[in-house]
Amino acid sequence: MDRALDAIFRPRSIAVVGASRDGRGIGHEILHNLIEFGFTGAIYPVNPKSASVHSIRCYPSLRDIPDPIDLAVVVVPRAAVPGVLDDAIAKQIKGLVVITAGFREVGGAGAAEEAVLQAKVRAAAIRVVGPNCMGVINTDPEFRMNATFAATRPERGSAGFMSQSGALGEVILAQAAEIGLGIAYFVSMGNKADISGNDLIEAWEDDPAVNVILMYLESFGNPEKFVRICRRVTRAKPILAVKSGRTAAGARAAFSHTGALAGSEAVVDTLFEQSGVLRVETMSDLFTLATAFAHQPLPRGNRVAILTNAGGPAIMATDACATLGLDVVELPAETQAALRSVLAPEASVRNPVDMVAAAGPEAYARALAILRDSPAIDALIVIFVSPIMINAVEVARSIIDGVRGARIPILSCFMGKEQGRQAVVDLRRAGIPVYAFPEGAARALAGLERYRRIRDRPEGRFASYDVDRERAGRIVKAAAAAGRADLSAEETSDLLAAYGLPLAPSRIVPTEEEAIAAAGVLGYPVVLKAVGPTLIHKSDRGAVTVDLRSAQEVGAAARAMRERLRAEPFRFQVQAMARGRETILGLARDPKFGAVLMFGLGGIFVEVMKDVVFRILPITDAEARDMIRAIRGYPLLAGVRGGPEVDEEFLVECLLRLAQLAADHPAIEQVDINPLIVGSERSTSCVVDARARLSPAVPA
Amino acid sequence: MDRALDAIFRPRSIAVVGASRDGRGIGHEILHNLIEFGFTGAIYPVNPKSASVHSIRCYPSLRDIPDPIDLAVVVVPRAAVPGVLDDAIAKQIKGLVVITAGFREVGGAGAAEEAVLQAKVRAAAIRVVGPNCMGVINTDPEFRMNATFAATRPERGSAGFMSQSGALGEVILAQAAEIGLGIAYFVSMGNKADISGNDLIEAWEDDPAVNVILMYLESFGNPEKFVRICRRVTRAKPILAVKSGRTAAGARAAFSHTGALAGSEAVVDTLFEQSGVLRVETMSDLFTLATAFAHQPLPRGNRVAILTNAGGPAIMATDACATLGLDVVELPAETQAALRSVLAPEASVRNPVDMVAAAGPEAYARALAILRDSPAIDALIVIFVSPIMINAVEVARSIIDGVRGARIPILSCFMGKEQGRQAVVDLRRAGIPVYAFPEGAARALAGLERYRRIRDRPEGRFASYDVDRERAGRIVKAAAAAGRADLSAEETSDLLAAYGLPLAPSRIVPTEEEAIAAAGVLGYPVVLKAVGPTLIHKSDRGAVTVDLRSAQEVGAAARAMRERLRAEPFRFQVQAMARGRETILGLARDPKFGAVLMFGLGGIFVEVMKDVVFRILPITDAEARDMIRAIRGYPLLAGVRGGPEVDEEFLVECLLRLAQLAADHPAIEQVDINPLIVGSERSTSCVVDARARLSPAVPA
Repeated sequence: MDRALDAIFRPRSIAVVGASRDGRGIGHEILHNLIEFGFTGAIYPVNPKSASVHSIRCYPSLRDIPDPIDLAVVVVPRAAVPGVLDDAIAKQIKGLVVITAGFREVGGAGAAEEAVLQAKVRAAAIRVVGPNCMGVINTDPEFRMNATFAATRPERGSAGFMSQSGALGEVILAQAAEIGLGIAYFVSMGNKADISGNDLIEAWEDDPAVNVILMYLESFGNPEKFVRICRRVTRAKPILAVKSGRTAAGARAAFSHTGALAGSEAVVDTLFEQSGVLRVETMSDLFTLATAFAHQPLPRGNRVAILTNAGGPAIMATDACATLGLDVVELPAETQAALRSVLAPEASVRNPVDMVAAAGPEAYARALAILRDSPAIDALIVIFVSPIMINAVEVARSIIDGVRGARIPILSCFMGKEQGRQAVVDLRRAGIPVYAFPEGAARALAGLERYRRIRDRPEGRFASYDVDRERAGRIVKAAAAAGRADLSAEETSDLLAAYGLPLAPSRIVPTEEEAIAAAGVLGYPVVLKAVGPTLIHKSDRGAVTVDLRSAQEVGAAARAMRERLRAEPFRFQVQAMARGRETILGLARDPKFGAVLMFGLGGIFVEVMKDVVFRILPITDAEARDMIRAIRGYPLLAGVRGGPEVDEEFLVECLLRLAQLAADHPAIEQVDINPLIVGSERSTSCVVDARARLSPAVPA
Repeated sequence: MDRALDAIFRPRSIAVVGASRDGRGIGHEILHNLIEFGFTGAIYPVNPKSASVHSIRCYPSLRDIPDPIDLAVVVVPRAAVPGVLDDAIAKQIKGLVVITAGFREVGGAGAAEEAVLQAKVRAAAIRVVGPNCMGVINTDPEFRMNATFAATRPERGSAGFMSQSGALGEVILAQAAEIGLGIAYFVSMGNKADISGNDLIEAWEDDPAVNVILMYLESFGNPEKFVRICRRVTRAKPILAVKSGRTAAGARAAFSHTGALAGSEAVVDTLFEQSGVLRVETMSDLFTLATAFAHQPLPRGNRVAILTNAGGPAIMATDACATLGLDVVELPAETQAALRSVLAPEASVRNPVDMVAAAGPEAYARALAILRDSPAIDALIVIFVSPIMINAVEVARSIIDGVRGARIPILSCFMGKEQGRQAVVDLRRAGIPVYAFPEGAARALAGLERYRRIRDRPEGRFASYDVDRERAGRIVKAAAAAGRADLSAEETSDLLAAYGLPLAPSRIVPTEEEAIAAAGVLGYPVVLKAVGPTLIHKSDRGAVTVDLRSAQEVGAAARAMRERLRAEPFRFQVQAMARGRETILGLARDPKFGAVLMFGLGGIFVEVMKDVVFRILPITDAEARDMIRAIRGYPLLAGVRGGPEVDEEFLVECLLRLAQLAADHPAIEQVDINPLIVGSERSTSCVVDARARLSPAVPA
């Protein structure tokens, strides 16, 4: 069977270039691991200074090997790498794992060297892992390849693990062994000169050996591609990621709310959310979740039953479930009756089902037979705290037999007592995750359920509206030609109008008298604003007065504004006052992640509460709807305490239209629509103020 | 030395009543543990059916023992407990540990039995742990008492551990042993018929053997006493607690915002916050923090240095620190220069200090010599991922020697590799906490720093204002006498006025015409409200119109209100319109925790964002100030984006005055001041609306 990255993962022959006789060298360690793990093909040490290494005949260079070589593991000093590469090309080797460090990670000459290496391998169609990595593992019995210098021997399993940190790779393997998480593949990606995380995800997408993909990441090479691939892959296979390096993100220019609020971390969270990848905060959590994903089916919902022989741990499990959005449901009367008929009289048959300390293997068997196939529950947590008079190994056996073939996820918490160790080993071997504390089981289960929701969420459609793209293009071009980055109020208003983002009716006039006349035409109440090139944050400058109800009030407000802003050039804008909820829609471009859309409630909600949501473009209509519903203040839009419900579909459309504007005009760097007032009908909803800025770098 | 609970913890002789010959019985297990752990006094098995147990001469009853007995451990069936108790009283035994279950936890006859036991032991001045517990441990070499049936042998250390769950006790001991956390005392509290968590905290307060108190709790016996004791104890000794059983809290009547929002969990969080006890979410976290508290000093601040031999883990540590409020500071130039002069050229001497993989024991020693006493840092995280060519045990030795006598907390992350196990054991033995992942070290350090802030926070003063307590008392009495729980608008207003909580000037009038006249007297703009016995949630009913600026507007609003509410009896209240931020102050009484004060921003902030803070009364002025600053929307009060800063001291005073009202009048069950409008000066701040309700149960 031919699969992606076969050159790396399925070699029939491996050369270790730089295999040394020195027992403390990395080359020696890799050779040792390959042999010790039982590589099923032939191994060829390469070292000009030795005739044999590790009792295997040694060759002075790759070219000297008489047989074809599929994969070369390179452990020579950096200066020697180019020569080895040339040899590999001459030898027509199709896969390289470059352990050697000193490339892009040290900058300068190292980075240049890596660029050369990259160009050469691409030209020769050689696939490369590294440089600056700790190697790769494939535990498939057909290959049994441990081409790493890790000290821990991996165990066969179904996790595909990639790490952007070599040092953490060592830790990952040690921890996986410790908790009994089996590995299908492990890849230390190093500098990702050729093979990236995206490549690995695609290689593992259809590989039946992998049923969960685990990642430790420090940066994204191609975030847009990552989202695209993961959206597809996570419909069928879960991906869990720890992303580090968050504080590396520098401060950013704050022209707009959107720019200021879209800190890298918010965008990274959004990226994971959109891609369907489960971001987990810590490595411990990654392992907690991974053992469940590796062996257990997904729940159909969030209803959990807890079976226990002790009260305290069951309370902890119940608490943790509730906190994590899982529902420890009341069991149906017939289930309770069935449990009651087989359990001791002192047992509680509500949920948690507490069989109390006297419960032995038989009690577990009887209760599991009833619970495992109950249609009333979607998952089961089995707790056992070994009392001295009960044999833990027999209880474990009873649980293993009792849940065999169950279609719901079953996780266990087996606690205390030295004697329990064998029981824990047995349970894990049978594919039942074991946690030291009930909260671990609850967290893992919540992870399964979170992924199920991701997998089941609607895919949505990419919408396209009938807009006046050319008119918008002319506005952008004209401003760019005039060397202006900030669009004027009129330009911004025209730009948004071209994309069907409706503005409140308004007039721009030079004098107090004309402002009063305009207000008469528009109808009271009105809003009066001062517009001018220097007036960016209008509220802060006293350049906005709302809710003016008469000619007198407009006149007084205009005079006060004139007085306050006498040093600045400005005109009056008189606007019909809209009624509804203030929202903010924003667009910003992240140098790494591209166009980012923001939504939130306007005014103090965005300024003080930072209650905003981001999505990386493009987005579907379903994602736009999600954005609106994801803010904390959403009840205000859905109608609370007698307030009106706003037109949500109108908001969805506005977001998608703004997204379309961003896609059509890359020169537009930032847009702040603040506020968009939205009422219960689209006819009473409109944009009240907006600002737009062009990128100096992108030609219009 | 005479100490509290000596009867339990420092016996010279112990009787095990119910010690059985059966190797699987609990009594046998306890006897075995006492012997095996090397109890330094004499042990007397009691069992009428045996002449000897475990090779020790056995007595038919407590009365038959010829020597004095300090402590009796009771493991007989429940029915036999009263007889044993009588024997213990006759024998003048001063301490009992009752393992036997079947008391209050089963309700009914069990609960009655426990009440009898409680009365008897109180009368006889016998101290009792349990019933329904797994025993007690004191590792003091002078006693070496393991009077539990736990399977894990405890190790000597400085943690005082109490658990309200016996099953978790087993787990706690196993986990403590696993991670090398030493125990001074362990107590499984069971039903707490006599000795409570509060008693244990007080017993350990001045006990030099305990330097950190750890609790697993499911309920509070006496929350007010808990707060009082912990406030005092945590000034000197840290207390960490896991509180479970949160979902047990039922739904509650929602007369007021305060009542509805003060769910049990919010109040429990508040209780821990006020008491100075660090609440930790999970048992894993409890252990993560405990190992640091047991062995390391507190930091002086939040500046952290990270010393590492690998990049990835250092990035993880940096991220975790930043997320947890710790500052991975830039090191001073001279520190960087000093490090530069002793480390390899490829090392990075900024923070994290990355010595790269080649760094061995000498590099660690040199770097630690510079960092450990640097005044620029408050804590140090040392990371080591063992590369194959470096001896981990030697590095551990180097770290142990290098940090000896340091005055800042030093935590380590020693990762990967089988060979490192011995190193981890060595580090732990030397009192240096070791974590599997960098995030663990960061979490533990953040816990130390959180406790330092708690310990250093100002104590504050209990304020008392000059109020008209008697007038308020008359209002409460009159309403109670009339059988009304809800006070009328006038009564509420009078009640608050008596406690110096200023109300906006207003008039209550029957007609539209009088409302217009009243508005003219008060001065525009005004607020018009409908007040009547059926109008509780005024905004929802359309019974409030704000910002009326003329007689016409008042007239129109009055007519509209009359139309809307024509079915109800009401009068108009005309109120001068206050300008400022809307806040909400509330008082509620929790059946368990007593009087609870609430503060938040009014309007949608409380309704939608639930941005409110609670404190259990009494509170100091410092705590009132903390309440105000603890809401998310605090920037709105402190002045954002040109908005005014409000008079914070006025708010503090209002909270304390409301607290005083609660203390003086226990019959007042709930008060909602919503809104209190607060401006930049107290003269422009006032209560705009308020409701108060009496408790039917408490006599006025």
